[in-house]
Amino acid sequence: MKAVQYRKIGAGPEVVEIDAPEPGPGQIRLRVTAAGLCHSDWFLMDLPEEQYTYGLPLTLGHEGAGVVDKLGAGVEGVALGEAYAIYGPWGCGQCHACSEGRENYCPYAADLGIAPPGLGAPGAMAEYVVVDDRRHLVPLGDLDPVETVSLTDAGLTPYHAIKAVEHKLYPGSTAVVIGVGGLGHVGIQIIRAISAAKVIAVDVSEEKLALASEVGAHHTVVSDAGAADRIRELTDVLGAQTVFDFAGVQPTVDLSKAVVAVDGFVHIVGIGGGVMSAGFFQTPMGAAVRAPYWGSRSELREVLDLARVGAVSVHVERYGIDDAVEAYDRLHHGDVRGRAVVVP
Amino acid sequence: MKAVQYRKIGAGPEVVEIDAPEPGPGQIRLRVTAAGLCHSDWFLMDLPEEQYTYGLPLTLGHEGAGVVDKLGAGVEGVALGEAYAIYGPWGCGQCHACSEGRENYCPYAADLGIAPPGLGAPGAMAEYVVVDDRRHLVPLGDLDPVETVSLTDAGLTPYHAIKAVEHKLYPGSTAVVIGVGGLGHVGIQIIRAISAAKVIAVDVSEEKLALASEVGAHHTVVSDAGAADRIRELTDVLGAQTVFDFAGVQPTVDLSKAVVAVDGFVHIVGIGGGVMSAGFFQTPMGAAVRAPYWGSRSELREVLDLARVGAVSVHVERYGIDDAVEAYDRLHHGDVRGRAVVVP
Amino acid sequence: MKAVQYRKIGAGPEVVEIDAPEPGPGQIRLRVTAAGLCHSDWFLMDLPEEQYTYGLPLTLGHEGAGVVDKLGAGVEGVALGEAYAIYGPWGCGQCHACSEGRENYCPYAADLGIAPPGLGAPGAMAEYVVVDDRRHLVPLGDLDPVETVSLTDAGLTPYHAIKAVEHKLYPGSTAVVIGVGGLGHVGIQIIRAISAAKVIAVDVSEEKLALASEVGAHHTVVSDAGAADRIRELTDVLGAQTVFDFAGVQPTVDLSKAVVAVDGFVHIVGIGGGVMSAGFFQTPMGAAVRAPYWGSRSELREVLDLARVGAVSVHVERYGIDDAVEAYDRLHHGDVRGRAVVVP
Amino acid sequence: MKAVQYRKIGAGPEVVEIDAPEPGPGQIRLRVTAAGLCHSDWFLMDLPEEQYTYGLPLTLGHEGAGVVDKLGAGVEGVALGEAYAIYGPWGCGQCHACSEGRENYCPYAADLGIAPPGLGAPGAMAEYVVVDDRRHLVPLGDLDPVETVSLTDAGLTPYHAIKAVEHKLYPGSTAVVIGVGGLGHVGIQIIRAISAAKVIAVDVSEEKLALASEVGAHHTVVSDAGAADRIRELTDVLGAQTVFDFAGVQPTVDLSKAVVAVDGFVHIVGIGGGVMSAGFFQTPMGAAVRAPYWGSRSELREVLDLARVGAVSVHVERYGIDDAVEAYDRLHHGDVRGRAVVVP
Repeated sequence: MKAVQYRKIGAGPEVVEIDAPEPGPGQIRLRVTAAGLCHSDWFLMDLPEEQYTYGLPLTLGHEGAGVVDKLGAGVEGVALGEAYAIYGPWGCGQCHACSEGRENYCPYAADLGIAPPGLGAPGAMAEYVVVDDRRHLVPLGDLDPVETVSLTDAGLTPYHAIKAVEHKLYPGSTAVVIGVGGLGHVGIQIIRAISAAKVIAVDVSEEKLALASEVGAHHTVVSDAGAADRIRELTDVLGAQTVFDFAGVQPTVDLSKAVVAVDGFVHIVGIGGGVMSAGFFQTPMGAAVRAPYWGSRSELREVLDLARVGAVSVHVERYGIDDAVEAYDRLHHGDVRGRAVVVP
Repeated sequence: MKAVQYRKIGAGPEVVEIDAPEPGPGQIRLRVTAAGLCHSDWFLMDLPEEQYTYGLPLTLGHEGAGVVDKLGAGVEGVALGEAYAIYGPWGCGQCHACSEGRENYCPYAADLGIAPPGLGAPGAMAEYVVVDDRRHLVPLGDLDPVETVSLTDAGLTPYHAIKAVEHKLYPGSTAVVIGVGGLGHVGIQIIRAISAAKVIAVDVSEEKLALASEVGAHHTVVSDAGAADRIRELTDVLGAQTVFDFAGVQPTVDLSKAVVAVDGFVHIVGIGGGVMSAGFFQTPMGAAVRAPYWGSRSELREVLDLARVGAVSVHVERYGIDDAVEAYDRLHHGDVRGRAVVVP
Repeated sequence: MKAVQYRKIGAGPEVVEIDAPEPGPGQIRLRVTAAGLCHSDWFLMDLPEEQYTYGLPLTLGHEGAGVVDKLGAGVEGVALGEAYAIYGPWGCGQCHACSEGRENYCPYAADLGIAPPGLGAPGAMAEYVVVDDRRHLVPLGDLDPVETVSLTDAGLTPYHAIKAVEHKLYPGSTAVVIGVGGLGHVGIQIIRAISAAKVIAVDVSEEKLALASEVGAHHTVVSDAGAADRIRELTDVLGAQTVFDFAGVQPTVDLSKAVVAVDGFVHIVGIGGGVMSAGFFQTPMGAAVRAPYWGSRSELREVLDLARVGAVSVHVERYGIDDAVEAYDRLHHGDVRGRAVVVP
Repeated sequence: MKAVQYRKIGAGPEVVEIDAPEPGPGQIRLRVTAAGLCHSDWFLMDLPEEQYTYGLPLTLGHEGAGVVDKLGAGVEGVALGEAYAIYGPWGCGQCHACSEGRENYCPYAADLGIAPPGLGAPGAMAEYVVVDDRRHLVPLGDLDPVETVSLTDAGLTPYHAIKAVEHKLYPGSTAVVIGVGGLGHVGIQIIRAISAAKVIAVDVSEEKLALASEVGAHHTVVSDAGAADRIRELTDVLGAQTVFDFAGVQPTVDLSKAVVAVDGFVHIVGIGGGVMSAGFFQTPMGAAVRAPYWGSRSELREVLDLARVGAVSVHVERYGIDDAVEAYDRLHHGDVRGRAVVVP
């Protein structure tokens, strides 16, 4: 089968021909119907050899959807031909966090050699992918896999962060969304769908701010030296009860700190390496800062249900598997509007 | 192997010799180290034929613990010789509730023919029991299985109800616990362990009230016509923010209604058939009533962790499997202090 | 000044001329700009003498808004000419509930002789009204008092019930709203504004169901013998995770019970006298039922903030104070679409 | 009357004779029965002139209790002779936070010139103190004012931080308490009282670790280079789900970061100036850090209710007002075990 792999440090992705995987007992093989590209793919492909820990060759694709194609021994409750999205942050399945479906915070996965597909295990950017356990499948039903596959990360990650502070998204509160890329433009829709908070979108690009308005931001602010002041103005000086930084670079983390309200909450979602110095006299009284990771099993169900009622949709650029390298190039150069998806 | 079965409507439990079960793919066989008796066993054995839906013969025992004895194909993360408690309320494993480990509220289990061990599936009151999936095993570690097996129901069920209203168990609030039997005497300990609420225990039996005091109740009240008044006195007329009725018969449900505070919460846990008429002008403003069922996977872990630090312990009467029928008799007559456990 | 009073048991409301009230120390007098009519006004005017406890004559109007007209001694933080809505469920201000602004659940108010304006204290259906403490004023700002005054009850009451179960309004869940009158049509808007739950509206009147659709219900169901079945169909047999019964008569309470899901939550808001028998084997496993009362101080702020962003609006029929009796007549006959408001 | 004042930058506290204050309308004068000393008193007295913003002369004492001595005009619900504790973090009383009694996060107080007693307004370290509004009084009842006055800060501040993460204090979780001084030794008791979490106390002083054990810590760890490793050992490598740093100096903040678990939560309570760099790849996945401030009105009630049932008690050193300067000296040198209290 064809697969998009990262095979050599520094070499970028390649399209190669490999054997289709076979499902072991309890495993499920999907024929892939869609696989999303993500900035974090580049993050790992840009790592120097001494920091790279994901194994080579690595089949990419931690956002995946497909149709059940073959069942391992003993699999029940899943039938050939059914359509599923893949829940990516695989955990041990047994610990306290995993027993609540919050496998994204399993503290044992790494030591047990458990890694998400595309981030250690063979990913979905191939004609077939094997999922280790049916609990990592969420029914797609009638949802278009190409339109929705990105929700498994670009939807789930913002949803998880937003849901964690749902109690601070009360009517009259303000949510600042920084970075209107793949995650940010979905994040705006999620906040609008599950709360009545006022959304202020921030980006360096006017085009992305236009997208922000399109998907529901009440206000847009260009990310420059005056951004904090404009946000304070838009919030009667109080600042924002919630901030979601989907860029996570130093200037956006600094902006997050500058605009978070007393008793507010900053989520640094983007892996841009920005750092916030937190502490008494540093951050406003009662303000918290957190770097979340992906999301839980039930949250993925809820994100797909948002799509089902039309409350979130991803702007998708569609590529054949042979064009995957080109798609990754466009992503690297920031040319993708929304999310790029490979359809094998 | 020997097993305690309910074989004929109206006949009560019998000790019989049957074949030991074999684990299929993904399943685990435990050598049983302890199995608890429960009033709900009698509830089902007292049902007339037309209401009985659990299948015959039924191996009893929905509270079970054991040591891994044989693994079905494809089972990973579980090793021979490890000690586990069985999580009983089996669900489909995939739906919204199950994906949060709240399989006790799986709305699909019944239709899918999924039933708890001892309540449809073959139970733990036998030398061996097969568990359908490793997610239904919670590590016992060094805990004594006989001392703790009852926590899988008599601990988990009150814990789930108590945890649901943890925010109402604030310092200065009052919790009324009605019925100091198997569940109630554990419930008192749980409330004391995870809150600073004042606990008032209610029972018809002075002996059980003595047990209540022993395990931490601040006050005890005999369940008679004056009980409501004495509870109102003990709560400065306000009543109780939380009520847990582990009897659930009409007089205790009536008492629950009489003593719940404004904005309080009544959990009718006991299956005594009592009914509360709820509605505006019926119950105090803002008061809620709910009949919970068993508990979630992470809650069972937490209950066992309570035992691990000595915060809860079950008063146990221990029986060999050949004495199981006698044990059931004693239970039927209300002679068991705490919980009866069969050790095969 | 003119005032609308209930002066004699069974006599209905009258427009009378009385002295304008004077604010004592700490009190604030408002010149009333709007006062809403409510079914509960009729509820109390329909009470027989032996059950009527609100005092006579009673100036009606527990939904009020006005402009600060005169300050009692020692009032700070409030200025002449400012526009406010009145928070109605006055409590003692000091107890546990009141110290969280949940004065609607103050257990001491009645004994202290503290009653809401229009429900014991002189109400807002007059040219002037005195508010006992500035904490019972919520800033209206630029909001139109006539358009928004009803939110102080017809908005706050459903908001409080909805907010209490916000965690059950997750994407993919269903909310059933029964009764699309003054409260119900606002309730639908609130659910839509703060969640992505699917809303099914139920009413006996096709006209009211049309209003339900207009304000955002996804589905409408005529309240007849087949209603429960249709709701089960619309929810894949599961039923509704949340039910809000704004009628509260026996048939609607019965419907609520018939359609609530496992682990669901029924709020009986309407004071129609309906009763639900709750208990094990009565209500679905884990389902709760509660009769809430009005709402908290911060919730009223949030409701007004919903209006501020256009997320909720009340269908209003406007009357001069001299037409108040006619307005009450129309309300009594169910002829008011949305809410009737008197503008003195 | 006698008062302990800070009168001149750098001069430390002095005992002086000043006029007793008179209560204005809505205000209450207390005859002080106890006033607590706090490290933050020294924090402000150590500030250079250009950073000092509390006004001079400043009557110290933000922990106060007393007996009602004189009522301003219009005060109801408070009677001469009643005993109260003073809620310190005064806010505007009207905003969203204040309407929930969370005046500690009022964003308007500073601009309105509202400051806590002893931190801007005249404090309780005097024979009489005036409280601006009865909402800032919490009934003491039979509690000994000297034994409990410190709970208004040294109890309320840890309680607020602990309560904010109550859901992370589940059985089986670990709470690390760093710094066993005035706040820390109460914090340990609070965690033990309202949860079953395992408590690990950390301090540089063996004597304070002994106090930690006395008040309920399960384990104690000397704060040195090996502390993080020992805590990891005590938590099966996972780290602590909750960390409360009551020192807040750089080494303890570093330790907090080193031991917080995945999805854990660090509260930096101490104002030692320590800073944590937070962000992706900086802190464990999902871990949050926050610098809380004091607590809410209902939380103070709950803390006093903890004292009422004997669940928390403060180790108190008692001084006459004439010995206040000596007491402050001992506090400055770290010689106070628990908390110092002045009894005028």
